Amino acid sequence: MKPLSSTARTRVRRLPERSSADRAVLYDILDAGMICHLGVVMDGAPRVIPTGYGRLEDTLYLHGSTGASSLMAGPSQDVCVTVTHVDGIVLARSVFHHSINYRSAVIYGTPQPVTDPDAKRTGLRAITEQLAPGQWDATREPSRKELAATAVLALPLSEASVKVRQGPPSDDEPDHALDVWAGVLPVQQTFGTPSPDPLLRPGIPIPGHIAHRVTS
Amino acid sequence: MKPLSSTARTRVRRLPERSSADRAVLYDILDAGMICHLGVVMDGAPRVIPTGYGRLEDTLYLHGSTGASSLMAGPSQDVCVTVTHVDGIVLARSVFHHSINYRSAVIYGTPQPVTDPDAKRTGLRAITEQLAPGQWDATREPSRKELAATAVLALPLSEASVKVRQGPPSDDEPDHALDVWAGVLPVQQTFGTPSPDPLLRPGIPIPGHIAHRVTS
Repeated sequence: MKPLSSTARTRVRRLPERSSADRAVLYDILDAGMICHLGVVMDGAPRVIPTGYGRLEDTLYLHGSTGASSLMAGPSQDVCVTVTHVDGIVLARSVFHHSINYRSAVIYGTPQPVTDPDAKRTGLRAITEQLAPGQWDATREPSRKELAATAVLALPLSEASVKVRQGPPSDDEPDHALDVWAGVLPVQQTFGTPSPDPLLRPGIPIPGHIAHRVTS
Repeated sequence: MKPLSSTARTRVRRLPERSSADRAVLYDILDAGMICHLGVVMDGAPRVIPTGYGRLEDTLYLHGSTGASSLMAGPSQDVCVTVTHVDGIVLARSVFHHSINYRSAVIYGTPQPVTDPDAKRTGLRAITEQLAPGQWDATREPSRKELAATAVLALPLSEASVKVRQGPPSDDEPDHALDVWAGVLPVQQTFGTPSPDPLLRPGIPIPGHIAHRVTS
Protein backbone atom coordinates (compact mmCIF):
# COMPACT_ATOMS: atom_id res chain seq x y z
CA MET A 1 0.00 0.00 0.00
CA LYS A 2 1.50 3.31 -1.08
CA PRO A 3 2.21 5.75 1.76
CA LEU A 4 0.37 9.06 1.53
CA SER A 5 2.17 11.92 -0.13
CA SER A 6 3.77 14.64 1.93
CA THR A 7 3.46 17.88 -0.01
CA ALA A 8 3.60 21.34 1.50
CA ARG A 9 -0.16 21.46 1.91
CA THR A 10 -0.68 17.93 3.21
CA ARG A 11 2.04 18.22 5.83
CA VAL A 12 0.20 18.93 9.03
CA ARG A 13 1.77 21.98 10.57
CA ARG A 14 -0.21 22.25 13.78
CA LEU A 15 -0.26 19.28 16.14
CA PRO A 16 1.57 16.91 13.79
CA GLU A 17 1.05 14.10 16.32
CA ARG A 18 -2.56 14.07 15.14
CA SER A 19 -1.47 13.33 11.59
CA SER A 20 -1.10 9.90 10.15
CA ALA A 21 0.55 8.99 6.89
CA ASP A 22 -1.30 5.71 6.75
CA ARG A 23 -3.29 5.07 3.61
CA ALA A 24 -5.39 2.48 5.46
CA VAL A 25 -6.58 5.20 7.85
CA LEU A 26 -7.50 7.37 4.86
CA TYR A 27 -9.56 4.52 3.40
CA ASP A 28 -11.27 3.86 6.73
CA ILE A 29 -12.26 7.51 7.11
CA LEU A 30 -13.55 7.73 3.54
CA ASP A 31 -15.39 4.41 3.70
CA ALA A 32 -17.19 5.40 6.91
CA GLY A 33 -18.66 8.61 5.44
CA MET A 34 -21.80 9.44 3.52
CA ILE A 35 -21.08 12.94 2.25
CA CYS A 36 -18.00 14.99 1.59
CA HIS A 37 -17.48 18.75 1.48
CA LEU A 38 -16.22 19.71 -1.95
CA GLY A 39 -14.23 22.93 -2.21
CA VAL A 40 -13.75 24.78 -5.48
CA VAL A 41 -12.59 28.26 -6.45
CA MET A 42 -15.22 30.31 -8.28
CA ASP A 43 -14.34 33.80 -9.48
CA GLY A 44 -11.37 33.75 -7.12
CA ALA A 45 -13.42 32.95 -4.02
CA PRO A 46 -13.86 29.64 -2.23
CA ARG A 47 -17.09 27.66 -2.43
CA VAL A 48 -17.79 24.62 -0.26
CA ILE A 49 -20.67 22.30 -1.08
CA PRO A 50 -21.80 18.99 0.40
CA THR A 51 -22.08 16.16 -2.08
CA GLY A 52 -22.10 12.39 -2.39
CA TYR A 53 -19.02 10.34 -3.14
CA GLY A 54 -17.70 6.82 -3.33
CA ARG A 55 -14.28 5.21 -3.20
CA LEU A 56 -12.98 2.42 -5.37
CA GLU A 57 -9.36 1.55 -4.65
CA ASP A 58 -7.30 4.70 -5.35
CA THR A 59 -10.09 6.68 -6.95
CA LEU A 60 -12.67 8.92 -5.32
CA TYR A 61 -15.82 9.35 -7.38
CA LEU A 62 -17.87 12.51 -6.92
CA HIS A 63 -21.51 12.84 -7.77
CA GLY A 64 -21.81 15.56 -10.36
CA SER A 65 -25.01 17.10 -9.15
CA THR A 66 -25.27 20.17 -6.91
CA GLY A 67 -22.00 22.06 -6.69
CA ALA A 68 -19.99 19.56 -8.62
CA SER A 69 -21.92 20.38 -11.77
CA SER A 70 -20.01 23.63 -12.13
CA LEU A 71 -16.89 21.49 -12.41
CA MET A 72 -18.26 19.79 -15.52
CA ALA A 73 -18.72 23.00 -17.46
CA GLY A 74 -15.28 24.56 -17.74
CA PRO A 75 -11.79 23.10 -17.97
CA SER A 76 -10.50 20.81 -15.23
CA GLN A 77 -9.72 22.66 -12.04
CA ASP A 78 -8.29 21.99 -8.60
CA VAL A 79 -10.62 20.84 -5.86
CA CYS A 80 -10.33 19.95 -2.20
CA VAL A 81 -12.52 17.18 -0.80
CA THR A 82 -12.91 16.84 2.95
CA VAL A 83 -14.65 14.07 4.90
CA THR A 84 -15.05 14.55 8.65
CA HIS A 85 -16.43 12.34 11.42
CA VAL A 86 -17.19 13.83 14.82
CA ASP A 87 -16.61 11.13 17.45
CA GLY A 88 -16.89 13.02 20.70
CA ILE A 89 -17.04 16.31 22.53
CA VAL A 90 -13.99 16.76 24.72
CA LEU A 91 -15.14 18.42 27.92
CA ALA A 92 -12.20 19.84 29.81
CA ARG A 93 -11.95 21.59 33.19
CA SER A 94 -10.87 24.76 31.38
CA VAL A 95 -12.63 26.40 28.44
CA PHE A 96 -9.25 26.56 26.71
CA HIS A 97 -8.82 22.77 26.48
CA HIS A 98 -12.29 21.98 25.14
CA SER A 99 -11.93 20.09 21.91
CA ILE A 100 -13.52 17.62 19.52
CA ASN A 101 -12.57 14.01 18.95
CA TYR A 102 -12.70 13.55 15.21
CA ARG A 103 -11.28 11.88 12.14
CA SER A 104 -10.86 13.86 8.96
CA ALA A 105 -9.46 13.27 5.50
CA VAL A 106 -8.48 16.09 3.14
CA ILE A 107 -7.81 15.28 -0.52
CA TYR A 108 -6.39 17.63 -3.13
CA GLY A 109 -6.39 17.14 -6.87
CA THR A 110 -7.90 17.81 -10.26
CA PRO A 111 -10.89 15.57 -10.92
CA GLN A 112 -11.67 14.41 -14.43
CA PRO A 113 -15.17 13.93 -15.82
CA VAL A 114 -16.00 10.28 -16.37
CA THR A 115 -17.59 9.94 -19.80
CA ASP A 116 -17.24 6.30 -20.83
CA PRO A 117 -20.61 4.65 -19.98
CA ASP A 118 -19.06 1.58 -18.34
CA ALA A 119 -16.64 3.69 -16.30
CA LYS A 120 -19.51 5.98 -15.35
CA ARG A 121 -21.58 3.02 -14.20
CA THR A 122 -18.63 1.86 -12.09
CA GLY A 123 -18.35 5.29 -10.47
CA LEU A 124 -22.08 5.60 -9.88
CA ARG A 125 -22.12 2.15 -8.32
CA ALA A 126 -19.37 3.24 -5.90
CA ILE A 127 -21.29 6.41 -5.02
CA THR A 128 -24.58 4.53 -4.54
CA GLU A 129 -23.03 1.76 -2.46
CA GLN A 130 -21.21 4.30 -0.29
CA LEU A 131 -24.54 5.83 0.67
CA ALA A 132 -26.66 2.72 0.69
CA PRO A 133 -24.77 -0.58 0.59
CA GLY A 134 -26.70 -3.26 -1.28
CA GLN A 135 -28.96 -0.88 -3.16
CA TRP A 136 -27.22 -1.11 -6.54
CA ASP A 137 -28.21 -4.75 -6.94
CA ALA A 138 -31.63 -4.31 -5.32
CA THR A 139 -32.92 -1.43 -7.44
CA ARG A 140 -33.34 -0.53 -11.08
CA GLU A 141 -30.03 0.30 -12.74
CA PRO A 142 -29.67 3.62 -14.56
CA SER A 143 -31.04 3.71 -18.08
CA ARG A 144 -28.87 5.04 -20.87
CA LYS A 145 -30.73 8.33 -20.64
CA GLU A 146 -30.28 8.56 -16.86
CA LEU A 147 -26.62 7.67 -17.20
CA ALA A 148 -26.17 10.48 -19.71
CA ALA A 149 -27.94 12.90 -17.37
CA THR A 150 -25.65 12.09 -14.45
CA ALA A 151 -22.23 13.65 -14.14
CA VAL A 152 -19.49 11.70 -12.41
CA LEU A 153 -16.03 13.00 -11.56
CA ALA A 154 -12.99 10.87 -10.74
CA LEU A 155 -10.34 12.17 -8.35
CA PRO A 156 -7.14 10.17 -7.77
CA LEU A 157 -6.27 9.61 -4.10
CA SER A 158 -2.69 10.74 -4.62
CA GLU A 159 -2.40 13.88 -2.47
CA ALA A 160 -4.16 13.54 0.84
CA SER A 161 -3.78 13.99 4.56
CA VAL A 162 -5.62 12.54 7.51
CA LYS A 163 -5.95 13.96 10.99
CA VAL A 164 -7.29 12.21 14.06
CA ARG A 165 -7.90 13.36 17.63
CA GLN A 166 -9.08 10.80 20.16
CA GLY A 167 -8.91 10.42 23.92
CA PRO A 168 -9.61 12.42 27.07
CA PRO A 169 -9.11 16.16 27.57
CA SER A 170 -5.57 17.39 28.14
CA ASP A 171 -6.08 19.91 30.91
CA ASP A 172 -3.13 21.67 32.46
CA GLU A 173 -1.96 19.82 35.58
CA PRO A 174 -2.97 22.53 38.09
CA ASP A 175 -6.55 22.40 36.78
CA HIS A 176 -6.87 18.73 37.78
CA ALA A 177 -7.56 19.95 41.32
CA LEU A 178 -10.66 21.88 40.20
CA ASP A 179 -14.08 20.67 41.26
CA VAL A 180 -15.13 20.29 37.60
CA TRP A 181 -16.21 17.16 35.73
CA ALA A 182 -14.06 16.31 32.73
CA GLY A 183 -14.31 13.64 30.08
CA VAL A 184 -15.69 12.87 26.66
CA LEU A 185 -19.29 12.88 25.46
CA PRO A 186 -19.36 10.33 22.62
CA VAL A 187 -21.08 11.41 19.40
CA GLN A 188 -22.52 8.71 17.19
CA GLN A 189 -24.34 8.53 13.90
CA THR A 190 -27.31 6.20 14.17
CA PHE A 191 -30.05 4.99 11.85
CA GLY A 192 -33.71 5.13 12.86
CA THR A 193 -36.69 3.07 11.79
CA PRO A 194 -37.07 3.17 7.98
CA SER A 195 -40.02 5.22 6.82
CA PRO A 196 -41.74 3.65 3.78
CA ASP A 197 -42.59 5.75 0.73
CA PRO A 198 -46.32 6.60 0.99
CA LEU A 199 -46.55 5.30 -2.57
CA LEU A 200 -44.98 1.94 -1.69
CA ARG A 201 -46.95 -1.04 -3.03
CA PRO A 202 -48.39 -3.17 -0.21
CA GLY A 203 -46.58 -6.36 0.69
CA ILE A 204 -43.00 -5.28 0.04
CA PRO A 205 -40.94 -5.85 3.19
CA ILE A 206 -37.89 -3.83 4.16
CA PRO A 207 -34.94 -5.76 2.73
CA GLY A 208 -32.29 -7.11 5.09
CA HIS A 209 -29.49 -4.90 3.80
CA ILE A 210 -31.50 -1.85 4.93
CA ALA A 211 -33.06 -3.31 8.08
CA HIS A 212 -29.72 -4.44 9.51
CA ARG A 213 -28.42 -0.85 9.58
CA VAL A 214 -31.11 0.29 12.01
CA THR A 215 -29.58 1.11 15.38
CA SER A 216 -32.62 2.37 17.28
CA MET B 1 -35.67 39.65 10.62
CA LYS B 2 -33.72 40.57 7.48
CA PRO B 3 -34.29 38.27 4.51
CA LEU B 4 -31.23 36.50 3.20
CA SER B 5 -29.36 38.14 0.37
CA SER B 6 -29.72 36.89 -3.17
CA THR B 7 -26.41 37.35 -4.91
CA ALA B 8 -25.29 35.43 -7.99
CA ARG B 9 -23.59 32.78 -5.87
CA THR B 10 -26.28 32.39 -3.22
CA ARG B 11 -29.07 32.02 -5.76
CA VAL B 12 -29.66 28.30 -5.98
CA ARG B 13 -29.51 27.35 -9.61
CA ARG B 14 -30.34 23.69 -9.41
CA LEU B 15 -33.57 22.60 -7.74
CA PRO B 16 -34.50 26.07 -6.48
CA GLU B 17 -37.49 24.55 -4.68
CA ARG B 18 -34.99 23.24 -2.14
CA SER B 19 -33.81 26.75 -1.36
CA SER B 20 -35.24 28.91 1.35
CA ALA B 21 -34.65 32.58 1.83
CA ASP B 22 -35.63 32.37 5.44
CA ARG B 23 -33.12 33.66 7.93
CA ALA B 24 -34.78 31.64 10.69
CA VAL B 25 -33.98 28.44 8.79
CA LEU B 26 -30.37 29.60 8.48
CA TYR B 27 -30.18 30.15 12.24
CA ASP B 28 -31.76 26.76 12.95
CA ILE B 29 -29.27 24.96 10.72
CA LEU B 30 -26.31 26.79 12.24
CA ASP B 31 -27.51 26.37 15.82
CA ALA B 32 -27.96 22.62 15.37
CA GLY B 33 -24.38 22.04 14.24
CA MET B 34 -21.12 21.32 16.01
CA ILE B 35 -18.55 21.84 13.27
CA CYS B 36 -18.42 23.73 10.00
CA HIS B 37 -16.32 23.20 6.91
CA LEU B 38 -14.28 26.31 6.27
CA GLY B 39 -13.14 26.92 2.71
CA VAL B 40 -10.25 29.21 1.82
CA VAL B 41 -8.11 29.78 -1.26
CA MET B 42 -4.42 29.02 -0.71
CA ASP B 43 -1.98 29.60 -3.58
CA GLY B 44 -4.93 29.67 -5.95
CA ALA B 45 -6.30 26.28 -4.88
CA PRO B 46 -9.21 25.50 -2.56
CA ARG B 47 -8.68 24.17 0.94
CA VAL B 48 -11.52 22.86 3.11
CA ILE B 49 -10.98 22.28 6.81
CA PRO B 50 -13.36 21.30 9.62
CA THR B 51 -13.43 23.70 12.54
CA GLY B 52 -15.54 24.84 15.46
CA TYR B 53 -17.87 27.80 15.32
CA GLY B 54 -20.56 29.64 17.20
CA ARG B 55 -23.36 32.02 16.29
CA LEU B 56 -24.40 35.16 18.12
CA GLU B 57 -27.19 37.05 16.37
CA ASP B 58 -25.86 38.02 12.93
CA THR B 59 -22.26 37.04 13.56
CA LEU B 60 -20.60 33.68 13.05
CA TYR B 61 -17.50 33.20 15.16
CA LEU B 62 -14.83 30.81 13.94
CA HIS B 63 -12.28 29.15 16.14
CA GLY B 64 -8.89 30.23 14.93
CA SER B 65 -7.09 26.98 15.41
CA THR B 66 -6.49 24.34 12.70
CA GLY B 67 -7.02 25.75 9.22
CA ALA B 68 -8.39 29.04 10.35
CA SER B 69 -4.99 30.00 11.73
CA SER B 70 -3.76 30.64 8.22
CA LEU B 71 -6.46 33.29 7.97
CA MET B 72 -4.92 35.18 10.86
CA ALA B 73 -1.53 35.59 9.23
CA GLY B 74 -2.14 37.50 6.02
CA PRO B 75 -4.62 40.19 5.04
CA SER B 76 -8.37 39.51 5.26
CA GLN B 77 -9.56 37.12 2.60
CA ASP B 78 -12.78 35.59 1.36
CA VAL B 79 -14.00 32.39 2.97
CA CYS B 80 -16.93 30.05 2.55
CA VAL B 81 -18.38 28.35 5.61
CA THR B 82 -20.68 25.37 5.16
CA VAL B 83 -22.70 23.53 7.82
CA THR B 84 -24.49 20.34 6.76
CA HIS B 85 -26.86 17.99 8.57
CA VAL B 86 -27.64 14.59 7.05
CA ASP B 87 -31.18 13.64 8.06
CA GLY B 88 -31.86 10.57 6.01
CA ILE B 89 -30.88 8.29 3.15
CA VAL B 90 -33.48 8.42 0.40
CA LEU B 91 -33.86 4.89 -0.95
CA ALA B 92 -35.60 4.92 -4.30
CA ARG B 93 -36.71 2.13 -6.61
CA SER B 94 -34.21 3.35 -9.19
CA VAL B 95 -30.54 4.05 -8.61
CA PHE B 96 -31.05 7.39 -10.34
CA HIS B 97 -33.43 8.76 -7.70
CA HIS B 98 -31.38 7.83 -4.67
CA SER B 99 -30.76 10.95 -2.64
CA ILE B 100 -30.01 12.39 0.78
CA ASN B 101 -32.35 14.28 3.05
CA TYR B 102 -30.28 17.11 4.41
CA ARG B 103 -30.16 20.71 5.57
CA SER B 104 -27.20 22.87 4.63
CA ALA B 105 -26.16 26.46 5.09
CA VAL B 106 -23.48 28.13 2.97
CA ILE B 107 -22.07 31.48 4.07
CA TYR B 108 -19.75 33.73 2.10
CA GLY B 109 -17.76 36.65 3.41
CA THR B 110 -14.53 38.10 4.70
CA PRO B 111 -13.98 37.33 8.37
CA GLN B 112 -12.16 39.76 10.60
CA PRO B 113 -9.85 38.78 13.45
CA VAL B 114 -11.35 39.60 16.84
CA THR B 115 -8.68 41.28 18.92
CA ASP B 116 -10.43 43.17 21.72
CA PRO B 117 -10.26 40.87 24.78
CA ASP B 118 -13.93 41.36 25.74
CA ALA B 119 -15.10 40.77 22.18
CA LYS B 120 -12.83 37.75 21.95
CA ARG B 121 -14.31 36.36 25.17
CA THR B 122 -17.80 36.86 23.69
CA GLY B 123 -16.82 34.97 20.53
CA LEU B 124 -15.13 32.16 22.45
CA ARG B 125 -18.18 31.83 24.65
CA ALA B 126 -20.38 31.42 21.55
CA ILE B 127 -18.00 28.79 20.12
CA THR B 128 -17.80 26.89 23.42
CA GLU B 129 -21.55 26.96 24.03
CA GLN B 130 -22.23 25.82 20.46
CA LEU B 131 -20.20 22.68 21.11
CA ALA B 132 -21.07 22.13 24.74
CA PRO B 133 -23.97 24.19 26.08
CA GLY B 134 -23.51 25.07 29.75
CA GLN B 135 -19.77 24.50 29.81
CA TRP B 136 -18.71 28.16 29.78
CA ASP B 137 -20.21 28.77 33.21
CA ALA B 138 -19.22 25.33 34.56
CA THR B 139 -15.51 25.43 33.73
CA ARG B 140 -12.52 27.68 34.24
CA GLU B 141 -12.66 30.74 32.00
CA PRO B 142 -9.68 31.51 29.75
CA SER B 143 -6.80 33.29 31.40
CA ARG B 144 -5.37 36.39 29.78
CA LYS B 145 -2.56 34.27 28.41
CA GLU B 146 -4.94 31.65 27.00
CA LEU B 147 -7.11 34.36 25.50
CA ALA B 148 -4.07 35.82 23.76
CA ALA B 149 -3.13 32.38 22.43
CA THR B 150 -6.57 31.79 20.90
CA ALA B 151 -7.52 33.26 17.55
CA VAL B 152 -11.16 34.13 16.91
CA LEU B 153 -12.60 35.29 13.60
CA ALA B 154 -15.93 37.07 13.14
CA LEU B 155 -17.92 36.58 9.94
CA PRO B 156 -21.10 38.61 9.33
CA LEU B 157 -24.12 36.53 8.29
CA SER B 158 -24.90 38.82 5.38
CA GLU B 159 -24.46 36.60 2.31
CA ALA B 160 -25.80 33.13 2.81
CA SER B 161 -27.99 30.47 1.30
CA VAL B 162 -29.76 27.49 2.79
CA LYS B 163 -30.84 24.33 1.07
CA VAL B 164 -33.12 21.63 2.42
CA ARG B 165 -34.28 18.29 1.03
CA GLN B 166 -36.80 16.30 3.04
CA GLY B 167 -39.42 13.70 2.26
CA PRO B 168 -39.77 10.41 0.39
CA PRO B 169 -38.05 9.42 -2.86
CA SER B 170 -39.39 10.86 -6.08
CA ASP B 171 -39.29 7.84 -8.37
CA ASP B 172 -40.65 8.05 -11.87
CA GLU B 173 -44.26 6.90 -11.97
CA PRO B 174 -43.64 3.72 -14.03
CA ASP B 175 -41.13 2.54 -11.41
CA HIS B 176 -43.83 2.50 -8.72
CA ALA B 177 -44.90 -0.88 -10.09
CA LEU B 178 -41.48 -2.41 -9.35
CA ASP B 179 -41.17 -5.01 -6.64
CA VAL B 180 -38.63 -2.83 -4.81
CA TRP B 181 -38.88 -1.33 -1.32
CA ALA B 182 -38.62 2.47 -1.24
CA GLY B 183 -38.51 4.96 1.59
CA VAL B 184 -36.20 6.88 3.88
CA LEU B 185 -33.66 5.56 6.37
CA PRO B 186 -33.46 8.28 9.04
CA VAL B 187 -29.97 9.37 10.09
CA GLN B 188 -29.54 10.82 13.55
CA GLN B 189 -26.72 12.21 15.63
CA THR B 190 -26.84 10.77 19.13
CA PHE B 191 -24.80 11.13 22.30
CA GLY B 192 -23.50 8.10 24.19
CA THR B 193 -22.61 7.58 27.83
CA PRO B 194 -20.04 10.15 28.92
CA SER B 195 -16.59 8.72 29.51
CA PRO B 196 -14.85 10.35 32.48
CA ASP B 197 -11.26 11.58 32.19
CA PRO B 198 -9.05 8.88 33.79
CA LEU B 199 -7.53 11.74 35.81
CA LEU B 200 -10.92 12.88 37.14
CA ARG B 201 -10.95 13.43 40.91
CA PRO B 202 -13.25 10.96 42.68
CA GLY B 203 -16.67 12.16 43.75
CA ILE B 204 -17.39 14.59 40.90
CA PRO B 205 -20.70 13.63 39.28
CA ILE B 206 -21.58 14.27 35.64
CA PRO B 207 -23.37 17.63 35.65
CA GLY B 208 -26.95 17.82 34.44
CA HIS B 209 -26.22 19.95 31.40
CA ILE B 210 -24.03 17.13 30.07
CA ALA B 211 -26.09 14.16 31.31
CA HIS B 212 -29.31 15.43 29.76
CA ARG B 213 -27.80 15.28 26.25
CA VAL B 214 -27.24 11.51 26.44
CA THR B 215 -29.56 9.73 24.05
CA SER B 216 -28.46 6.13 24.51
